[in-house]
Amino acid sequence: MPRSGIRYGGDYNPEQWPEEVWADDVALMAEAGVDLVTVAVFAWSELQGGPGRELEGGWLDRVLDLLDQAGVRVDLATATASPPPWLAASHPEILPVTAAGVRLSPGGRQHYCPSSPVYREAAVDLVERMARRYGGHPALELWHIGNEFGCHVPACYCDVSAAAFRAWLQDRYGDIDELNRAWGTAFWSQRYRSFDEVLPPRIAPTFPNPAQRLDYRRFSNDELLACYQAEKAVLRELTPEVPVTTNLMGLFRPVDGWRWAAEMDVVSVDRYPDPADPNAHIGAALVADLTRSLAGPRPWYLMEQAPGAVNWRPINAAKSRGQYRRWSLQAVARGADAILQFQWRASAAGAEKFHSAMVPHAGTDTHLWREVVALGADLVRLAPVAGRPVPAEVAVLLDWESWWGLELDSHPSAEVRQVALLLELYTPLFEAGFVVDVAHPAADLSAYALVVIPALYSVGDGTAANIDGYVRRGGVAVVTYFSAVVDTADRIQLGGYPAPWREMLGLAVEEFAPMPAGTTDRLTGVLAAATSSARRWEERIQLRGAEALLSLASGPLEGGAAVTVHDHGLGAAYYMATSPDPATTAEVLAHAASRAGVSPAARVPSGVEVVQRGDHLFLINHAEDMRQVDIGEAEREDLLAGGRHSGVANLGPGEVLVLGAVEVPPGPDAPTPPR
Amino acid sequence: MPRSGIRYGGDYNPEQWPEEVWADDVALMAEAGVDLVTVAVFAWSELQGGPGRELEGGWLDRVLDLLDQAGVRVDLATATASPPPWLAASHPEILPVTAAGVRLSPGGRQHYCPSSPVYREAAVDLVERMARRYGGHPALELWHIGNEFGCHVPACYCDVSAAAFRAWLQDRYGDIDELNRAWGTAFWSQRYRSFDEVLPPRIAPTFPNPAQRLDYRRFSNDELLACYQAEKAVLRELTPEVPVTTNLMGLFRPVDGWRWAAEMDVVSVDRYPDPADPNAHIGAALVADLTRSLAGPRPWYLMEQAPGAVNWRPINAAKSRGQYRRWSLQAVARGADAILQFQWRASAAGAEKFHSAMVPHAGTDTHLWREVVALGADLVRLAPVAGRPVPAEVAVLLDWESWWGLELDSHPSAEVRQVALLLELYTPLFEAGFVVDVAHPAADLSAYALVVIPALYSVGDGTAANIDGYVRRGGVAVVTYFSAVVDTADRIQLGGYPAPWREMLGLAVEEFAPMPAGTTDRLTGVLAAATSSARRWEERIQLRGAEALLSLASGPLEGGAAVTVHDHGLGAAYYMATSPDPATTAEVLAHAASRAGVSPAARVPSGVEVVQRGDHLFLINHAEDMRQVDIGEAEREDLLAGGRHSGVANLGPGEVLVLGAVEVPPGPDAPTPPR
Amino acid sequence: MPRSGIRYGGDYNPEQWPEEVWADDVALMAEAGVDLVTVAVFAWSELQGGPGRELEGGWLDRVLDLLDQAGVRVDLATATASPPPWLAASHPEILPVTAAGVRLSPGGRQHYCPSSPVYREAAVDLVERMARRYGGHPALELWHIGNEFGCHVPACYCDVSAAAFRAWLQDRYGDIDELNRAWGTAFWSQRYRSFDEVLPPRIAPTFPNPAQRLDYRRFSNDELLACYQAEKAVLRELTPEVPVTTNLMGLFRPVDGWRWAAEMDVVSVDRYPDPADPNAHIGAALVADLTRSLAGPRPWYLMEQAPGAVNWRPINAAKSRGQYRRWSLQAVARGADAILQFQWRASAAGAEKFHSAMVPHAGTDTHLWREVVALGADLVRLAPVAGRPVPAEVAVLLDWESWWGLELDSHPSAEVRQVALLLELYTPLFEAGFVVDVAHPAADLSAYALVVIPALYSVGDGTAANIDGYVRRGGVAVVTYFSAVVDTADRIQLGGYPAPWREMLGLAVEEFAPMPAGTTDRLTGVLAAATSSARRWEERIQLRGAEALLSLASGPLEGGAAVTVHDHGLGAAYYMATSPDPATTAEVLAHAASRAGVSPAARVPSGVEVVQRGDHLFLINHAEDMRQVDIGEAEREDLLAGGRHSGVANLGPGEVLVLGAVEVPPGPDAPTPPR
Repeated sequence: MPRSGIRYGGDYNPEQWPEEVWADDVALMAEAGVDLVTVAVFAWSELQGGPGRELEGGWLDRVLDLLDQAGVRVDLATATASPPPWLAASHPEILPVTAAGVRLSPGGRQHYCPSSPVYREAAVDLVERMARRYGGHPALELWHIGNEFGCHVPACYCDVSAAAFRAWLQDRYGDIDELNRAWGTAFWSQRYRSFDEVLPPRIAPTFPNPAQRLDYRRFSNDELLACYQAEKAVLRELTPEVPVTTNLMGLFRPVDGWRWAAEMDVVSVDRYPDPADPNAHIGAALVADLTRSLAGPRPWYLMEQAPGAVNWRPINAAKSRGQYRRWSLQAVARGADAILQFQWRASAAGAEKFHSAMVPHAGTDTHLWREVVALGADLVRLAPVAGRPVPAEVAVLLDWESWWGLELDSHPSAEVRQVALLLELYTPLFEAGFVVDVAHPAADLSAYALVVIPALYSVGDGTAANIDGYVRRGGVAVVTYFSAVVDTADRIQLGGYPAPWREMLGLAVEEFAPMPAGTTDRLTGVLAAATSSARRWEERIQLRGAEALLSLASGPLEGGAAVTVHDHGLGAAYYMATSPDPATTAEVLAHAASRAGVSPAARVPSGVEVVQRGDHLFLINHAEDMRQVDIGEAEREDLLAGGRHSGVANLGPGEVLVLGAVEVPPGPDAPTPPR
Repeated sequence: MPRSGIRYGGDYNPEQWPEEVWADDVALMAEAGVDLVTVAVFAWSELQGGPGRELEGGWLDRVLDLLDQAGVRVDLATATASPPPWLAASHPEILPVTAAGVRLSPGGRQHYCPSSPVYREAAVDLVERMARRYGGHPALELWHIGNEFGCHVPACYCDVSAAAFRAWLQDRYGDIDELNRAWGTAFWSQRYRSFDEVLPPRIAPTFPNPAQRLDYRRFSNDELLACYQAEKAVLRELTPEVPVTTNLMGLFRPVDGWRWAAEMDVVSVDRYPDPADPNAHIGAALVADLTRSLAGPRPWYLMEQAPGAVNWRPINAAKSRGQYRRWSLQAVARGADAILQFQWRASAAGAEKFHSAMVPHAGTDTHLWREVVALGADLVRLAPVAGRPVPAEVAVLLDWESWWGLELDSHPSAEVRQVALLLELYTPLFEAGFVVDVAHPAADLSAYALVVIPALYSVGDGTAANIDGYVRRGGVAVVTYFSAVVDTADRIQLGGYPAPWREMLGLAVEEFAPMPAGTTDRLTGVLAAATSSARRWEERIQLRGAEALLSLASGPLEGGAAVTVHDHGLGAAYYMATSPDPATTAEVLAHAASRAGVSPAARVPSGVEVVQRGDHLFLINHAEDMRQVDIGEAEREDLLAGGRHSGVANLGPGEVLVLGAVEVPPGPDAPTPPR
Repeated sequence: MPRSGIRYGGDYNPEQWPEEVWADDVALMAEAGVDLVTVAVFAWSELQGGPGRELEGGWLDRVLDLLDQAGVRVDLATATASPPPWLAASHPEILPVTAAGVRLSPGGRQHYCPSSPVYREAAVDLVERMARRYGGHPALELWHIGNEFGCHVPACYCDVSAAAFRAWLQDRYGDIDELNRAWGTAFWSQRYRSFDEVLPPRIAPTFPNPAQRLDYRRFSNDELLACYQAEKAVLRELTPEVPVTTNLMGLFRPVDGWRWAAEMDVVSVDRYPDPADPNAHIGAALVADLTRSLAGPRPWYLMEQAPGAVNWRPINAAKSRGQYRRWSLQAVARGADAILQFQWRASAAGAEKFHSAMVPHAGTDTHLWREVVALGADLVRLAPVAGRPVPAEVAVLLDWESWWGLELDSHPSAEVRQVALLLELYTPLFEAGFVVDVAHPAADLSAYALVVIPALYSVGDGTAANIDGYVRRGGVAVVTYFSAVVDTADRIQLGGYPAPWREMLGLAVEEFAPMPAGTTDRLTGVLAAATSSARRWEERIQLRGAEALLSLASGPLEGGAAVTVHDHGLGAAYYMATSPDPATTAEVLAHAASRAGVSPAARVPSGVEVVQRGDHLFLINHAEDMRQVDIGEAEREDLLAGGRHSGVANLGPGEVLVLGAVEVPPGPDAPTPPR
């Protein structure tokens, strides 16, 4: 019987410990308020001793029973993420191969070719055995299919993959001349006479065909998804009532979040911000917003985070005091219904033994354990928030297929990266107090007053029209450079960039002018401050109705437009032909927000994050000193510390305040809460 | 019927476009004054559908007819640069293999082993078909064999190449003990007992034998050249009257310009200076001078340049206003008879779609198109210059074989690079207004008053004597450190460096002393300024008659000579035992030029390039502000703007002035023009 | 008949030269005082023409006879270091394979798989022929087995190695479940069901199992050692009276100095400090101290150093004036009984032709040759020092197996490197004038007053107890962070780091907090100066009896302990939870030395190295100006310059003073020499 509030727990790998430790585990789980654990993610080799063999499940039976007795529910993994040594030993052809032809070895994890029929059959066999044995276990609450699909091996280039790619292409294009057209093979003498001639984009003397590479990213995503779907099909058949998930990885290029999330009952994510990065909480907020957006009406879980340091960066900073709590509560603020950690008990051996865990090597007389226990108590207090929505009036657009194209090589500038641009635009919105959804460019955007479009390199006709229609009907869009440059086959849309949006933007771009790294040019115009500058990219623009808000005041294109706005139908379209400095970027977005009629939540001091979830207001002080926030005159409940607040609330360094619903005051007019 | 002046045009790839675009192409060519296009460079896969099959040449027939009707002549490619997918699919053994054993994949271009008999036969078959079908076409003016030989795959290390290497070695050395002597195999237990044991210098535990590596560079150049020669032989037989070329790549290490140029009727080069490099025009001038020198009495063409940005650097700057014109006219000034671009119309697909072209994606209502048209008009005005020579009294020496040796590993300093040193010495000559030839060290140098020899690492006996004789007979030579260190088998010339020139230089070098990167030592002496410093390299020198012009004033060799001069026969030999700062280098060269009795052209202000071609004087202002030049009292025709100039001419920022012959004035004494 | 003093000479490779040069060689050897040369290190291909063939030893017979006649003794190599081309040509399976599966090529050197039975048999066959032919030659003094074992190819990953690894594992673990326990294969689904499934840690999708990698380093060391032992067994049988050695490489990770030195009669080392590094002499001193410690009571030889520059760094600085002499005499001061160079005569060909030698390319009228001759004379004067011991009261601990574990990946910080930490602690001891031994952690440490333990990552139970007992019995230990973290199977020692030493140190570490590169935090406390700072690493510490000498005064762990001391038994244990700046590190060590009751030798000015060997005192001025040293009132002989000194001695820039024993003065009390 799961607790109805925010779930708490983590990956639990009892197979790494002698059985006498297990009783201690459940006792400590109770102390910390843990009610959900993920079990058996990497247990295949402990569960099965050879192909088609019976499960060696006695230990797992006992683990599940023990957890059940303790009231801890289980997110049970299908255990297929890492095949056991015997599978690679008997079938080395399942091992993945790099683009340079190196066959990767077992010894780490995820060493399988996603197209391998041998791997898929073995995985499905295992899943069927797991479902039959544990599908009815009372502790079972959720199936966890595989693990971090695409991590380490986003694509395989072996001959098995090549054959699968050819079948995929035949399916997509029907005949070879259609492929030739899509890939532009008239260039560099690449015309295929038969599908049999086509290969994966293995390492070549120079840039391989970009459309081939793009299709290989599509294919590889599809093949990984097919692995997931094959497992899911078994589970749906045998345990139709048990929901399924797999852990996505946030802004992770190889797998298309939209396609994957559509296949899940609970959308979950692994999130590992770097404690050494002073802006890590902003990227973390974006990942939370993305996951909430992927989930839509379904719940989303923070499936993995580290209570302290990770072990896979070159230098792995510890979390500073309160950071674990703050980042966890940020996820709750932004919609998470579960806060789960990797992992429960720190491993004593293996490649992740220096990854922090809820129970550290040093045991429970530790600062870290006390933080773990305290967060468990916080989450109990936040039970009223569970399941509540997080409203947003602003969206940023993200399309994995466009991202794949954007980051191909042989482009004007290798410095144009999807996540970096996304963060450059998300950050000022975050700092101004906007809650932002992430949306697919083909989605219905009518709920948003403002839509921000960072480097949406490729758009199909439908998508282009969707954005255009959104603006015509009154929306406000902010489009950056290097958007709508190509169609979905990575073919230039001719006649001046961005061809499908020239009318909407009231301009045409003649020529791109990427800037050398580290250089800037000055900006002038109505939105400019004395220090405003352009970075990374400039363009030679013809204005055709658009108004320049910022212009170049130095450099080879001096006098040209840099940021413009154009009325289009009932709405307005902004164009950013450069990456201004952060303050100027914030000015541009503030201007657009104002045009869209949305305003940030009550002005909060810098460093304070503010999010409304349901009726509750979260205030998170990421700064290292005290901040004051005006929360309005009405009294509101303090869910964490207890008591009530009104007027100016003091937020100590790193502190978090969660306020309940505004209580209707005796007077006639309800004050407006700071959204 | 070709225009008689400077040719204009570029690569034309109509196979990438629907046929309806072609008519537009020829109309625009007329507008821009295009009269020469290169066709079919990468069209093999569009021209032939399988091994030995008939040409699918209908489309090309129509293209050539259309061009002919429009009066545009054709540099027709043999189309062999990139084999079609069917060739690699049926013969994967043609694919090149890296030194680490990775077989490269098709998907890019130039994916063939130069030693592959399969590739060579297929290429020769194609060339024969091309020659038979198009050899008599009225549009055909020039054959373009292959494309950028050695680009991407300068050498292949496969087993086919290994066998070819053994045959090449047998041919070179006759018996294995001769090879053992040449390679010094007594070192590190490398003595071969038979040619069968010899391998390419594949990746080894540590530095492979340097003489083996040097011979592999020779062999690889020869194998590429053999590909070229095989095609040329077919063309010579079938179309003896049609000249041939292939596009060299300037200061490109893998192929020996001297050997290749000797096989061409027109010498052509691809030149892509980086618009973001403020000194790019100097390197561009050097490439032009090199190509003119390679061509000797034959014409040279700028076969490829970009009208704007390229796409293969990490960040690809656009050309700034006038840069396209300026760099093009620089090439004309330095002897080019054709200015051709890659490419005519910007591709919509493929790995080079972001490479600029004469017709940009944005069409003809663009700044770039207007620059393209304007340059076409300029070139018409420069017709009188076509075919005229560019005289030079100064030469820098360059020998590809020495370069190959120079840049092997396990050397005193990896910072000694051929092109960098060449540019360090070329730059002050360029800035002083000297026009410089590039010469082979074994060439007759008697036409030059001054010969500059940057790091000529290896010299054979004949070459060493050639330079010595040049000085004895009155020449002035400037030799830098790390010259004449080894013989042509990469074997040290013993007894004190540079052994063959100790007498000429009047000194002996005991020991090299490379300097840590970024460090300097002070220099004193008659040529020193307060800021004079040594960089990169010092030496322990015994003076044996030479006079020190600069000495080390700090560092471990304080007091030792750094730059010397020595009378030798009727001439003088300078030795630079270090790389001084640029200003001091300029002083050294000015001293040598003075000793040689050559003086720069009339002192031009910094940033202005001055070149005499035939009777015409080119003045190119690379600076961003106005410069004034005294062009003498006689009136001279302004070929570009029309009108006449005398006295002080104003050169606006980025402007170019081409002046006609000095007209004989009425007075008795003709003024000397600023050469 | 060897000279009884310090031996002098180098590698002599006459096979690279025509026979007429050999007479010149022996004459020059006489001039320089050379009495020991190493011959035939890379002569296999000159000595044998095919598998099992007779030696082609005529040339070597003549060389040895010539040397013998000249009174030069020979360190004769077994010539197995680099197999000849015919062996790899007929048995390509002997070639080593990288972790990525690349089979390395011949062409360099040391291209053999250490586990290859084919290679081992061929090597043993050769050694047997060498021993039979030369074992009785009068010039023979020492056998030189192989060369720099592990250099270039520290491990091979081929299938032959895989099989050998499985056998090694079977031997180590007996049954597969023992291996599973040791390697922690319950993590990431890595449990093996049979030894047949185990592979080398080849390149995998992510971090391979660290215990597998650790065992592979152990196995690879063992396999290399087995090659050495196989050769040694032949020599012991055929020439039991001839001592054997091989040249170790100092602080070289792949081979375990302790294991190897135990197999030698003379311990020898190759040492190549970088002349461009101003602190190179400190690292050089450490290598000398290490080699002396490895040798224990046996003699140690400096087997290779360069008289000038090497050729394998990117930039190879020449030695500055006196550096060759100074570093050579430093080795003698620290116990060396032979100063040998690579090599005698500089090669004219091959990959090391730019490596300096005793006879340079420029011949004998050179500064370098004069330095070579002068050093030979110095060594004659130092004959009284030969064989004398170098006493030390301080030891630093080094264990190769721990080092192998320390530098695995997936650790808290990749910046924690064994040699860097060792040097950070050794440097202040060196600068204070302490002579330091290097000791194995399991050794008897009772002779030392102070033991310094830099990042001893793994300790077994016995080792942990050894250190604990050392302190209990009155020793003083300084332990740094990341010590005793794991056991010998790389398994965490649980309960708070460093678990086995928590009691000894009086503290427990809860959590590691590595610091971002380049950042610092302030330190306060009794040992702090105003500028004291923490770098690289911090920890969350619980003090359990220890006293904080330094605490963190900024950063996330502000207020926590950084350096502590704790009385334990009769001794004291210091803990350094960070890497302080150098001055503060020196303060910590001075505090510990004071606690240990050891004091540096008479305070010498900075830059002067002081070492006592036997009765002799070496004073080496590494600074570039004059230094003065008070050597006490008694008169002492100046062994190098002759004469006698007392009171204050002047040491010119770069000068070396070797003083004889203190002569007993007439008065009653002998003064104490500066140790």
